Amino acid sequence: MALVTLTTDFGDGSSYAAALKGAVLTVNPSARLHDLSHRLPPQDLIATAYFLGDVLPWFPAGTVHVVVVDPAVGTHRALLAVEWNGQVILAPDNGCWTSVLRPVAEPPRVFRLENPAYWRPEVSATFHGRDILGPVAGHLTLGVGADKLGPAVTEWVGLTLPQPNVLDNGVRGEVVVADSFGNLVSNIPALAVPEQCEVRIAGQRLGRRVRTYGDAEPGALVALIGSSGRLEVAVVQGSAAARLGIGVGATIEVTATASR
Amino acid sequence: MALVTLTTDFGDGSSYAAALKGAVLTVNPSARLHDLSHRLPPQDLIATAYFLGDVLPWFPAGTVHVVVVDPAVGTHRALLAVEWNGQVILAPDNGCWTSVLRPVAEPPRVFRLENPAYWRPEVSATFHGRDILGPVAGHLTLGVGADKLGPAVTEWVGLTLPQPNVLDNGVRGEVVVADSFGNLVSNIPALAVPEQCEVRIAGQRLGRRVRTYGDAEPGALVALIGSSGRLEVAVVQGSAAARLGIGVGATIEVTATASR
Amino acid sequence: MALVTLTTDFGDGSSYAAALKGAVLTVNPSARLHDLSHRLPPQDLIATAYFLGDVLPWFPAGTVHVVVVDPAVGTHRALLAVEWNGQVILAPDNGCWTSVLRPVAEPPRVFRLENPAYWRPEVSATFHGRDILGPVAGHLTLGVGADKLGPAVTEWVGLTLPQPNVLDNGVRGEVVVADSFGNLVSNIPALAVPEQCEVRIAGQRLGRRVRTYGDAEPGALVALIGSSGRLEVAVVQGSAAARLGIGVGATIEVTATASR
Repeated sequence: MALVTLTTDFGDGSSYAAALKGAVLTVNPSARLHDLSHRLPPQDLIATAYFLGDVLPWFPAGTVHVVVVDPAVGTHRALLAVEWNGQVILAPDNGCWTSVLRPVAEPPRVFRLENPAYWRPEVSATFHGRDILGPVAGHLTLGVGADKLGPAVTEWVGLTLPQPNVLDNGVRGEVVVADSFGNLVSNIPALAVPEQCEVRIAGQRLGRRVRTYGDAEPGALVALIGSSGRLEVAVVQGSAAARLGIGVGATIEVTATASR
Repeated sequence: MALVTLTTDFGDGSSYAAALKGAVLTVNPSARLHDLSHRLPPQDLIATAYFLGDVLPWFPAGTVHVVVVDPAVGTHRALLAVEWNGQVILAPDNGCWTSVLRPVAEPPRVFRLENPAYWRPEVSATFHGRDILGPVAGHLTLGVGADKLGPAVTEWVGLTLPQPNVLDNGVRGEVVVADSFGNLVSNIPALAVPEQCEVRIAGQRLGRRVRTYGDAEPGALVALIGSSGRLEVAVVQGSAAARLGIGVGATIEVTATASR
Repeated sequence: MALVTLTTDFGDGSSYAAALKGAVLTVNPSARLHDLSHRLPPQDLIATAYFLGDVLPWFPAGTVHVVVVDPAVGTHRALLAVEWNGQVILAPDNGCWTSVLRPVAEPPRVFRLENPAYWRPEVSATFHGRDILGPVAGHLTLGVGADKLGPAVTEWVGLTLPQPNVLDNGVRGEVVVADSFGNLVSNIPALAVPEQCEVRIAGQRLGRRVRTYGDAEPGALVALIGSSGRLEVAVVQGSAAARLGIGVGATIEVTATASR
């Protein structure tokens, strides 16, 4: 089926994203390319980790994901092919992809890209996405096995994402994504949020937890479990980021209240 | 042929647009996805209506359009499948799609999405695009008939777009789209614009109606019938929005002048 | 294989880019569309030329490229189909594509689009991308030969790109692309840059030429040969454009230093 997705920090409409597409299509002109994002903040591994963690679980087995957020391009950092959930992730060994791993799952099969047979003949020092990852993605969609790409490895760079802290009577986390609506998405999973609770952010106390945006009047500041399955603070039909003047990194505190 | 288009207010490069793609491809990995826009102004049904009215007529029969501008997600608003012009529009029942209807045409066949057999098993309260519309689009491209999705309905929410007013000797309308060039596109159709006319906008009198931008010198403020088939005010190789300091909602007045 | 790419100045998410896609797909619903950029600066032929020169060499033979940066749309400027490197470029005759030509190569076969059999029946004065180039791209992917589109021509508009000047002991060029990272990419090819050299830009002297970004500490201002194969000035994990307060047009000077 030849599904290939692209996730980069190249910027929309950049020549780099365009050249990357050409590099995949040169190997397999029938590859079905899908842009996931070219707007990750430059060199931001944490933002990339949250993005991939929120997005990759929705893709079908067989998909090949090319991830190019690569501040160390051209140095001795490795490039990896990760077999995960029937999908393959191609990414630099900088931890940006480890957010998809679950503690209870079997560890993935991981290969280090060392076999230049699947690369462009000339590899630049600054653009391994175009010269290595793109061509490798093309070859994978043509049926090449990941184990042909290089040796299996059992160690890789992990990324430590900010974890929420359990408190006496609640949980404290932080904003990890500010989306284009201005919704402030935290790292607090739904399971850690009591049904009856008070949410505080940026010195404001949010009385109301709602089920969805439309459950409160336009302009209301609300807390809810968002599309990522984590606690989020939103202004109904408005921007919480603009209203509160905050973004990624802001603290969110949840306190259980007496159930009625 | 499995053509699926995506039109949302999610923002370019957002994880929501990416997850929506995965949701379609999980049902039909061979679906041919095409981004139309992820930049509609958040929750703006009027802007969405003009966008769809300007774009959907150019698509071939068989296309499935997924439209997710959905301020009332998770409430009791319905989701619809609209058979229009041989195409299918999947959208919330909020009127955003009714701009494609023409008074003289037969009314479309419309179905309310009530059959969860074509949805994801778990449906969130905040992201029906990913959990319902995307999977339904996948199933439609696999050959499922729209009448399998739920009951036919003959009533739906309509959206009243701002209409131009006919004057004694002309017509008054307003800017409904400011495009990325800064062209100010009105709601006045070509048929309502006399060949010999004077156009006024933001206190300025435009002497010239031209056929195309290149018919006047760079920097000239001109009126013309634009690509949407409606009157538009432009600065040749410049931005009328920036020059005049106006945007959507500004009044445009057309007065017929003596023909020569 | 029906590969079609789109390169325009329409703006991301604009109705024009969406309608252009529909126009291609109406002729060939199986065309595989790929967005290259919809963010070229409006009407900027020089920026388009650098973009195409940096991107098109990475695409496979058989690709059809639709390029719509067209300030003279609707006037007497011609539209062209250019057979280049086994690919076809469809573009206005304004020179934006001539950057792909190499002095030593055979001249391309070029046809002027004059055969309306492959256009939409009605052609607007303001949107030849949708009404002519898009449909023609569709027909090319269905197997129509470029020579069916109109007469062969041997003259076309050329665009003169800013050329670097060879100095006594080095070379002087200018910034021609400022990418989304803030890297300042010049028009000085790698071959013209001595291994041992000093680079000056905006009154600053850069002591170091590096092989790749990661070869210097974060925050360092460095010169390197970038992904385009030309000299570029960058701030490691930062923005040279922001740091230096400059962009396209700024002068870069390279002086050879004594080799060690």
